[in-house]
Formats: sequence, structure tokens, C-alpha cells
Amino acid sequence: MNRRSIIAGVVFTAVSLGTRVTADEQTLYGYSAESSRTERQWEEKLRAIPSPENLRSYMQHLSARPHNVGSAYDKENAEWILAKFKEFGLDAHIEQFDVLFPTPKERLVELVEGGPKFVAKLQEPPVPQDPTSNQQNEQLPTYNAYSIDGDYTAPLVYVNYGVPEDYEQLERMGVSVKGAIVIARYFHSWRGIKPKVAAEHGAVGCLIYSDPHEDGFVQGDTFPSGAWRPKDGVQRGSVADMPVYPGDPLTPGVGATKNAKRLNIKDAPTITKIPVLPISYADAQPLLAALTGRVAPEGWRGGLGVTYHVGPGPAKVHLKVKSNWDIKPVYDVIAKIPGSAFPDEWVIRGNHHDAWVNGAEDPISGAVAVLEEARSFGELLKAGWKPKRTIILCLWDGEEPGLLGSTEFAEEHYDELRAHAVAYVNSDSNGRGYLGIEGSHTLEKFSNDVARDVSDPETQLSVWKRSRLHEIAEAKSGEQRKEIRERADLRIPALGSGSDYTAFLQHDGVASLNIGFSGEDGGGIYHSIYDDFYWYTHFSDTDFVYGRALAQAGGTAVMRLADADLLPFEFGDFADTVQTYLKELKALSEKTRDDIRERNREIEEGVFKATDDPRHPLVAPAAEAVPPHLNFTPLENAVEEVTRSAGEYRKAFDQANGNGGTRLASASLAEVNHLLIESERKLTNSQGLPNRPWFKHQLYAPGFYTGYAVKTMPAVREAIEQKEWKQADEAIVVVAGVLRDEAALIASAASNLAAAK
Amino acid sequence: MNRRSIIAGVVFTAVSLGTRVTADEQTLYGYSAESSRTERQWEEKLRAIPSPENLRSYMQHLSARPHNVGSAYDKENAEWILAKFKEFGLDAHIEQFDVLFPTPKERLVELVEGGPKFVAKLQEPPVPQDPTSNQQNEQLPTYNAYSIDGDYTAPLVYVNYGVPEDYEQLERMGVSVKGAIVIARYFHSWRGIKPKVAAEHGAVGCLIYSDPHEDGFVQGDTFPSGAWRPKDGVQRGSVADMPVYPGDPLTPGVGATKNAKRLNIKDAPTITKIPVLPISYADAQPLLAALTGRVAPEGWRGGLGVTYHVGPGPAKVHLKVKSNWDIKPVYDVIAKIPGSAFPDEWVIRGNHHDAWVNGAEDPISGAVAVLEEARSFGELLKAGWKPKRTIILCLWDGEEPGLLGSTEFAEEHYDELRAHAVAYVNSDSNGRGYLGIEGSHTLEKFSNDVARDVSDPETQLSVWKRSRLHEIAEAKSGEQRKEIRERADLRIPALGSGSDYTAFLQHDGVASLNIGFSGEDGGGIYHSIYDDFYWYTHFSDTDFVYGRALAQAGGTAVMRLADADLLPFEFGDFADTVQTYLKELKALSEKTRDDIRERNREIEEGVFKATDDPRHPLVAPAAEAVPPHLNFTPLENAVEEVTRSAGEYRKAFDQANGNGGTRLASASLAEVNHLLIESERKLTNSQGLPNRPWFKHQLYAPGFYTGYAVKTMPAVREAIEQKEWKQADEAIVVVAGVLRDEAALIASAASNLAAAK
Repeated sequence: MNRRSIIAGVVFTAVSLGTRVTADEQTLYGYSAESSRTERQWEEKLRAIPSPENLRSYMQHLSARPHNVGSAYDKENAEWILAKFKEFGLDAHIEQFDVLFPTPKERLVELVEGGPKFVAKLQEPPVPQDPTSNQQNEQLPTYNAYSIDGDYTAPLVYVNYGVPEDYEQLERMGVSVKGAIVIARYFHSWRGIKPKVAAEHGAVGCLIYSDPHEDGFVQGDTFPSGAWRPKDGVQRGSVADMPVYPGDPLTPGVGATKNAKRLNIKDAPTITKIPVLPISYADAQPLLAALTGRVAPEGWRGGLGVTYHVGPGPAKVHLKVKSNWDIKPVYDVIAKIPGSAFPDEWVIRGNHHDAWVNGAEDPISGAVAVLEEARSFGELLKAGWKPKRTIILCLWDGEEPGLLGSTEFAEEHYDELRAHAVAYVNSDSNGRGYLGIEGSHTLEKFSNDVARDVSDPETQLSVWKRSRLHEIAEAKSGEQRKEIRERADLRIPALGSGSDYTAFLQHDGVASLNIGFSGEDGGGIYHSIYDDFYWYTHFSDTDFVYGRALAQAGGTAVMRLADADLLPFEFGDFADTVQTYLKELKALSEKTRDDIRERNREIEEGVFKATDDPRHPLVAPAAEAVPPHLNFTPLENAVEEVTRSAGEYRKAFDQANGNGGTRLASASLAEVNHLLIESERKLTNSQGLPNRPWFKHQLYAPGFYTGYAVKTMPAVREAIEQKEWKQADEAIVVVAGVLRDEAALIASAASNLAAAK
Repeated sequence: MNRRSIIAGVVFTAVSLGTRVTADEQTLYGYSAESSRTERQWEEKLRAIPSPENLRSYMQHLSARPHNVGSAYDKENAEWILAKFKEFGLDAHIEQFDVLFPTPKERLVELVEGGPKFVAKLQEPPVPQDPTSNQQNEQLPTYNAYSIDGDYTAPLVYVNYGVPEDYEQLERMGVSVKGAIVIARYFHSWRGIKPKVAAEHGAVGCLIYSDPHEDGFVQGDTFPSGAWRPKDGVQRGSVADMPVYPGDPLTPGVGATKNAKRLNIKDAPTITKIPVLPISYADAQPLLAALTGRVAPEGWRGGLGVTYHVGPGPAKVHLKVKSNWDIKPVYDVIAKIPGSAFPDEWVIRGNHHDAWVNGAEDPISGAVAVLEEARSFGELLKAGWKPKRTIILCLWDGEEPGLLGSTEFAEEHYDELRAHAVAYVNSDSNGRGYLGIEGSHTLEKFSNDVARDVSDPETQLSVWKRSRLHEIAEAKSGEQRKEIRERADLRIPALGSGSDYTAFLQHDGVASLNIGFSGEDGGGIYHSIYDDFYWYTHFSDTDFVYGRALAQAGGTAVMRLADADLLPFEFGDFADTVQTYLKELKALSEKTRDDIRERNREIEEGVFKATDDPRHPLVAPAAEAVPPHLNFTPLENAVEEVTRSAGEYRKAFDQANGNGGTRLASASLAEVNHLLIESERKLTNSQGLPNRPWFKHQLYAPGFYTGYAVKTMPAVREAIEQKEWKQADEAIVVVAGVLRDEAALIASAASNLAAAK
């Protein structure tokens, strides 16, 4: 998997000092002046170590053959990584889980009526100049993992991206997908949403294709001439219902150990309700060309040289999907550097190592950075560095099918992680461009600080400064620009899902960050056989300088967390962020009311009747009850408490930071650090979200109907979106309670810090 | 030609009466209660006359063969129309002008390097089921009239729509068109802008093609399966520099009579500077596919199934254009109904009759409405109707090459028209949908009133009400919807250019309206051989009910103007409109300042350097001097004077309208009516616009770089857009002077009206 956004961070506090100082002279947040100096020296050594040549050679090795879950090379890679960790001087082991992992037995897509008889190729051809593209014997066929088995022949309907709003439009067009096979294009939601929503609307099958508009020749020249998806390229991927729970479908909430209690496959709720297959745009074209009916609305038209119609039919498609439903091992490779002062406080870093095929970009470009970080830590340890806290480096297996390795690990070690984990720093894929950082807002300031100390290989600016200027360039309004220019820290987006931080953050309540470079590395080989060493070294971070920058960023973050006197959690940015969420929710609720009121008025005025074109009639919407006002007061009060306690913490910190911050180095801060570690845990509750109890975090979750994209304060936001007003009012109380507890924790940390000697 | 937008109007004043009344009970604006009743009876008779069967049979006849300027059938049509006018009992004649009209002698487009050798077809194939598509002997070849002759072989550059902003982007990409042949797609400007801007940037040739994204299979099924442009369809059209002056390039400002003084062809400023040819998307595809270089920016990508590149080259194109530069006759057909009370006050109605080929939609769908209006007036005259004012019905020739027939007429009869013309009502093409009305804002209320009394054939609502509901549905904001709901009249857009109102409004200063139905009649046969009876009767207003509605609207407007006691000019809407123009200009000037200031700041911050991708480098913009504040005070004062005098007029009108409005029927209103007629004249001045003195109107003109789209207060607006600050300040004074004169005229009309007995 792989999902990145461009954003980054660190301001630093030169502003408040009133003088211009260089980064080196700045005292690190959470460090005494003295420990900051020492830390800076170690960090500089660290950042000098990662080598592009090593990254390149690791990638060449790890992506030399297909290494999906269950493949021989997946296991070989795990053992090779383990050996590397040991070679670097680290204590390491492999932790194995046994998970349900279906692989294709039968796949068929054919046009049986409504156009020239056509059987989809479902096959990605090798490319002569690309030496690993011809390893067909080891390549997983193109498929969507965790599609239910099925065999249907039915009329085809084009459903655009296949998200709920598309079905609203279909309804207005008078088109039903009941009993139909839908064809949806990739993008605008995580892929698993498409069969889920299709099934909710009565479809019997689902095809997902890569349209050249988003993912092919419209974007640029196609592989091997260019970086973009060729006509026969297919995006594999999981379609398990991960917004319900990720990980092994048979062992929700517990580690998939040998003897774990397992659900029957037929009872596993995250397996799709209808069969699904992904296809290339070459395979999609004859199917789409055979549709008639209404011409697709403007926003629905893709880049194929055809008129897009919605159908249904006359195209009739035969879809057959059958899998081998086997249990396969996943091999998480774990290395540990024990902490010298606080061994029970764990700083965790991870990236997955499994791929859909060769996976040079996804995930090896990120995995090699973690390996190089491990080597760097090994070097520093040899040179005498003693991290205060325990560092755990993880190369996960089974991320692609469903975040399997990381989720089973986070479930299996739930209690330990709740007790010990300080933070989890994830990466996945990496490319050229800007450092993207997403994550917990208690670490927003921290992540800005890290970005300030990493250098961009193209411009030699700090990656923070480059991101800041990029955000100014991309700002949509003067107001946005003003905020960027005036706010000390760049905002970081919240985490939804799509990579291995999910279980740590959203199930275990561990403060998490996800980092990676991107933005100048376009391409369309995602989850295809063409995501390989040849492609990566021709079209992405070809000289691995951004790979080095990622190792520098990841290494710096981990090290700075591990060595801090006072853990660098900060609550001003956090309070500011929850304030904006509250504002958004109030606006969303008002907008929903206004929209319904306006639509009712238009129905009454006769707008829909008057503007209906009898040659292309639409179904007018029905009037709806105007929703009640929601009672946001509990949240307003809770957010205010968070803001107030954040101020108290800031004040206590400033006092402790006086006189060279010697008080920060005090041993009496153990309790404060413990409270800081708890601060993310406090944002979870044991019941979890309504209807998906696995997701415990009350601030961040992937949307039930977006899959990747985050919904912040999800219980409230999704209730409003789904017009469940009673549930929204209840959720406000729950989230307010969580925030009040958080505020109390922060206040307690503040008074503890103030009392520290 | 043909350019329509959807909008319409009439509120009516039930609101102020406080009671609900039906349209029939409303006293017509400018009529006494008694004359209103009589007028309503005549109007109802009028609207009962137009017959879809007649419209259909006129169209079948007039579009039976190609009838471009200079063709035999063009002359036959003129004579047939003349005979029809006479048959309807009207006094009619043909007025001939002799104009420069180039037709193709040689045309060649070939790809000579950079891709497989390819010679463009430049030919639209007949379609078997379409009986007039095979009249090749009489069809004008595909070409752009008034392209200069030329023969060049040069590298190709793709310039998107070929408008000035596209060249700004090219500059940032480091791409020059100097010495190149550009290929631009149709749309986003009038076509003549494309070679003009290309030449300004040093290009030696220009191809214009119809991209399927706007005008082909992306929009819908192509002809003959559907209404949209087939792959070999070509848009012919004029490329004369009409924003400088329309009409015969050799006789600017004077009628192209037999003995008129003519420029030498080589001195005619409106002939293009570089050769131009229009091509189909089938012909464009191999040329675009042969471009490499930077991938075109997202907004530049069309619907052809290729990766769009900008070039330059390696594609090298050979372009050859040579024309027969002949003088050809144009035949304006003019019918006159003399006024019974005020024969020296002329109400003029027009539509052109010439086409590029068969032109069923453009212009015959509009021309047949005028014919049917003529028949209806004939019937009413026989029944005893005596219009107070003279009505002149015109079917223009030579509109397609450059508004030739109407412009030469308006130039030739300049003094008479300045003295006598009350208003000009134009139409061009017609289809299904909403009544679009654009024009002079002194007639905004009037045009709303007319629309209130015409019935939409699909919904049986008044076309005004349907338009109002459509505007509510399409509104972009709650504010917009609020205005639509609360404002008495729907706003009408100002006129730019693109049809025969231009010379009347913008050269002669005659208040003008342009009307036509559209919005449900998509299609892509514009200016091709497929715009014919077969296409129109399969894909547009197939049962001619919207043709009838147009005849009803046009007939009602003309009749109501001709019969009014007091001419229905109104200045409240006008004042409101110039107020919004002033606001727009102030905002535009502020935005220009802000944008320059912001860009300078970003240059200084290093934004452009920091965000440059070294693999796709851009040329950073240069810092610019921040523009001075403009002095809008003269305009502010003038607009206030207009508003004040509009209020005075309204007050005088309300008084005169009291007691059944008997004072409105007073003979002493002759002077007021004379002032009202002058009200549009006062908006012109003799110098005209800077650098294009032919355009006299100081409120409305086609943009120098848009061609169709209006620039309101053009001297000020274009000076700001072109960053000519001194010129902008001078233009503010000029426009303010014109508006002060207008205000004085309105005030004088008000006191005259108040004094009338």
C-alpha cells in the first residue's frame, strides 16, 4: 500500500528569541541545553551515515523477485533482512503470524452480449528492456485479495468512482445497479469501498479499472517510454473491508498466532459481499464502449477515446472469481536496541517489506531507508551512543493484503504496547519531492522540528523550508498564505489509513507519524509487475538521494524521541487542531441543515420539475425533514479545557526550560514522561467507534466510506454525514468526554512538570 | 456565427401591487391601462399565429443546398425570402453590398518530420443517411476566411486554446513559438483570437482543431449516431480581426457600396498576419501524437487518446494556405412596416440567412422565426393592427465571414439609424431549452416582461419562470440565489460580439437585444456540412416548438416596442448594472495589485526557486512594479448621478402611470420618447475605444483578446488587464463623462415626463 500527501514541518523558535540563530544553536525541544548539544552531535553523525549506494543495492536485492505473502522470496527477504539487522549489530528476530491469504484460482471477465464478444486478457505483458518483468512464474496474477468467490452474468453499469455520491447521481438518473455488475474506476476512495458500496446497492459483481485519465497516458508517457501505467497494467490490491478492521479477517482483535481462535471464512465480515476483479484500461475499453444509455455526466468521463455511457447494458458481462483460501505465514522482522535509561519506553519505527509483485517503489523504497537507519544506529552504538529509550525497528510482512503483519503484531502485543510505546514512526514508499508528514498533533511541533534539520537534496534548503514555500505556492487563498507565514509550525494532516500505522494509532492508541517524500515522482506502476528496480531507477529517485533524506528524517525522529529528557509532546498545536475540527463539524452540521432546507425550498418552488429535460429526464429528489440543531456545547467546553491545559503545560515547560533547562534533565520527570506517553492512549476508548469497535481512537479514523482518507472526530462527523442526528448528539458527548480526560491529563502533566525539581 | 448564453427575464410588478394578479391583468410598462388592454389582445393574436409546420418547411427550403456568400443558392434564398415578405403583404427589397470574400484555392497540412508522414484530409465525408451531406460540388472547403496566404514548414507547438494566458504558461515552461506553427484547440475564445495572439508571439502559422473534449465524442455520441461532431468534422469560420472592426475588411466605417473607397487588400488591418487552417480531430491526432517535450499541463489535455505534449517538435508541419481574393455580393433582405403614429421611430428585428454550408441550425433555425414573425405581422395588419412605429425586418447576408451584411448596412445608414432607431432585436440560431436574452440594460426590465408572456413548450411555464428556476438551480452561492429570488428582474448579460447586433449596438449606439433558445440542444455540427436539415430534425428542436417560441418572443418584443405609448426603457436596472461594473473594476484593480504584490513577495521568499523541479524546470517570473491605485472617483460620482436620475425617472413614471396611466398616452411624450431613444446613443462617443475607434460604445464591447465575450466598460477594464495604468485612469474619466451625460439625459427625460400633461 502507499498513500502519501505533501506537507511537512518545523518551525523553530528563533522568532521568540528575537535574534537570528542557526539551527545548531537551537536547544532541542525537551532537551536541556547540554543534552541538546550532545544530541545534536550524535544526530549529525547519524545523518552523515546513510548512503545512496547501499539503498540502491538493498533495493536491487529485495526487489529482484516477486515477494508477496506466501512466496518463497518473501521468506528469503525476511531472512535476509534479519541477517542484515544482525550484521549491523542489532538484536533481531522474526515474529511469525498465520493469516488467511486468498490467491487466484479462476479469473474470467468476458463481454457476452451488447458488443463484439471479448475476453479480458487479465495479464500484464513483460517489457523486453525490463529484466524482472518476465518472472511470470512467480508473479501473482492480477486480482483483488479477499474478494468473495462468485460467478455471475449480468448487465454492466458504469458507476464512476463507485463512491456513495456517485450512487446518489445514479439514482437521480433513474439507474439502478440491482442485479448488475458495476465497473468503477480506481481513485477517489480506497479500492475496497467500491465493491462495498456496490453491494450495498444490490450489485452482484464489481470490476475496478485504471482509467488513463488518472492513471495512464493522459498523465504522461507510459512505461517503458515514460513513468505512467501502460494499457495492460493492472492495479492489484486488497478489498477487505478494512474500515471495519484491518489485519487477518479471521482473527479480529487478537494476534493470528498458530493457535489463535479463528472465525470461519464464511463468517469473516471483512471479506467482500460480491466478487471483484481489477482490470487494465485495455481490458476496460471494449466493456465501456459497449454501454449505451445516458451519456456519463461530465465529471464521470475518463480518458479512453470513447463516449462514456452509464448503461445499464446492453453490455452483459460474465465475471468469475475463485480463490485458493489458504492460511499463509507472514514474517515480521523485528530489531531491538535496548534503552539505557528508560528501557520500558519504546520508540518504534516501521515499514513493510512484502509487495504485490517486485515492489521496488512500494514498499522497498521505504524499507531500504529503515534498513539504512538500522545500519546507522549500529554505527553510532559502536561509537558509544547510548539511547535513553528502547528503539524497535520493524519490517512488516503482509501489509499489502491488509496491514496483516503490523496489525497482528499490534494486536498480539496490545498490552505491552499500551504500557510502553512512546510513538510509532511509519513509512511506506518514497520518491522525489517534498517530505510529507501526517500524524498525531501532539507531535506536530516535534515533526516540524525534525523536518527543519533534514536537507533537501535538490535545493539544499531544509525540507521544512522547502515544504513551507511549496505550501505558500499552493495555497488557495490569501488567508491560507497568511496562516502559513505566521504560524510557527506547518500543520500536519491527520492519519486515515493505508499503511502500517493504523493498528498502532487507531487500535492501540500509540502516537504515530507517517513520513515519506513525494510530489515530483508521478507514475503509474502502483501494484503492477512494472513497479520494479528498472522502473524505479529510470523514473523515480534514480540516485537515491531522497532515500537518503528519508533515512535521515526517520533516523533523526527516532533518535530524538529516544534521547529526549522530556518527551517532545506539545499541546498548543494539538489544541489548535481540535479547535479547527470543532469548527469544521459545526460548519458541516449547519451546511447539512442549509442544504436540506434549500433543497426542500427548491422542490416546493418547482425547480426540479421546471429544469428537467424531457429527453433526458431525471428523478427529482424527495423533500427531507430539516435536521435538528446539534448540541455542540459539550465539545465546545472540552476543547476549551484542552486549550487551557495546553497553556498550563506550555507555562510549566517554559519555566522548566529556563536556566539552560537543567530541570528538564531531572530524574523526577519520569512521571511527566509517563503521562505524555499516555496522552495518545487517552484519546481512545474501549468501546471504539459505533459499529466498528476495533477502531478505538476518537479523533482519527479512516472514513467508513473513504477507506484511506481520514475522518477526524469520526463518530461525530460520520453521524452527521449519514444524517444520524441522535447518534451525532451522543457521539459529541463521547468525544467531549475523551477530550476532557485528555485535558485533565495535560493539566496533570503540567503540574507534575511545574513541581519537578 | 452563433453565440448564446442561457439567461432570461421578466419579473413583473405584482409584488408592488400587493395582490396576486395574472399576467393578463398587468398593465404593460409604458402603456396606459387602455392601450395595454388593446396591445395584449393583439399580442395574443400574434403569438397564436407562428406554426411549427411553416418553420419546418422554411428550414427545409432554405437549407436544401449550401448557401454561403457568393453561392448561387445564397442569392436564390435572398430572392425567396424577398418573395415571402411580399407574399406576407410587406414592403420589401434587397440591399446589396460588395465585399471582400476569400475562398480556398490551395490548402495543405502535412507532417513532414517527427512522425509517420501524414497528409491531413481536410475533407468532411458525406453520411449516407444524411441527404444533403453529399453536395460536395457546392460545399465550401473547410477553411478560415480572411487567413492571409502563406506557405511555411516549421516545428509544431501545442498552445492549448491559444489565448494570452496560455502563452504566459508557455513562457514559464520556457517554450517559445517564434518561427513555429502553433496548433490550438477551438473554444475559450473566438477563433480569430488564436492566430492573432500566435502572430503576436512570433508564430508563422496556426492550426485550429476541434478537440473531442469540447466538441466530439467526449461530449456524446457522434453524428450520425448522435448529435456530436464526428472525427472528420471541421469548424469553418472567420478569423478576421473583428475586435478591431467587423464587416468588409476593405471598407471600415462606410458601407461597401459599388463605388465605396476601398483599402488595398494588403493594407486591410483585419486580415490575419499568419496563415490559418481549421482541422478535424482525426487530422489533428497524428500531429499532436508526434509532439514530445513537456507533457501538457492538466488543463491543456484534451480528449484524444494520446498523451498531450507541448513540443516544440520534433513534429514539423508544412502548412499552405492560398485563397481567391474576390469581391462578392451580399444580399440583405429588408422589409418595412411603416409606423402609423411615429413613422420616424424604427424598431428593427434581424437574423442572418447566409451559412457556411447548409446551416440548418446556424442560422436558419433563427431566420425562420423572423420569417414567421413577418407572416404574423402580415396577418395582424390585415386584421387591422396599426403599429405606432415603423418596423424593419432584416435577413442579413454575409454574417458568417464577418457580420458583413449587417455591418455594411449599419455603416451605410449610420445617420438614419442614429436618428431613428429605437432598438434592434437580433437572433441567430435556435434550439431547445431556455430563452437566452442578452443586451442593453435600459431594456432589461422590458426583456423580462416579454419573457414573462412567452410560454415554454416543454413545461408550459412562462419562459421567464423557467429561466428563473434554472438560475436558482445553477446558482453558485446562497447569495446568488437570494438575489435571484428577491430581485424583480432577472439580470441579462451584456453583449460582446458574434452576431449581427454588433454594428447596431457598438458602432451606431442602438439599444439591442439578442435572443434565442438553447441549453438542451447540445451538438457538435457547428459550421460543418452536417449542420443541415437531417441533423436538426433528428437532434435539435425536432418539432419546431422552440422555433415557434422564438417567433413568439421576437414578435412580442418588436410589437410591444412599436406600439408603446412611452418607450419601455427603464433605468433602475441599468443603474444597478453599471454599479456592479464599477464594483468589478475596483475589485479587479485591487486584485491585480494584490497579485503582483504577492508574487513579488514570493519571488523574494524564494518560492519559485524552492518549488522548481529540476527534471521539469520552469522559468521563474520576474518581479513587477506594484501598480498605483487608480482614481475611481469620477466613475463613482457618475454612477451615483445615474442612480439618482434613474430614481427621478422612476418617480416621474409612477406619477404619469397613476390613474390608469392616461398621461402616458399623451401626445406630449414625443420629446420624452426622443430622449429615451437617445439614451443608448449617449453611451457612445465619437472617438470610440482606444486603438479601435470603430467601437463607439463605452459600456459594451467584445474583448480585444476574447472576441466573443464582452468586456464591460472596456476602455477601463482592458487597460487594467493590460496593466496600462495611465490609460486606465484616463479611461475612467472618459467613461465617467459618458455616464454623466447619460444621467443628464435621464434626468431631462424625467422632468419632461413629469411635465407632460
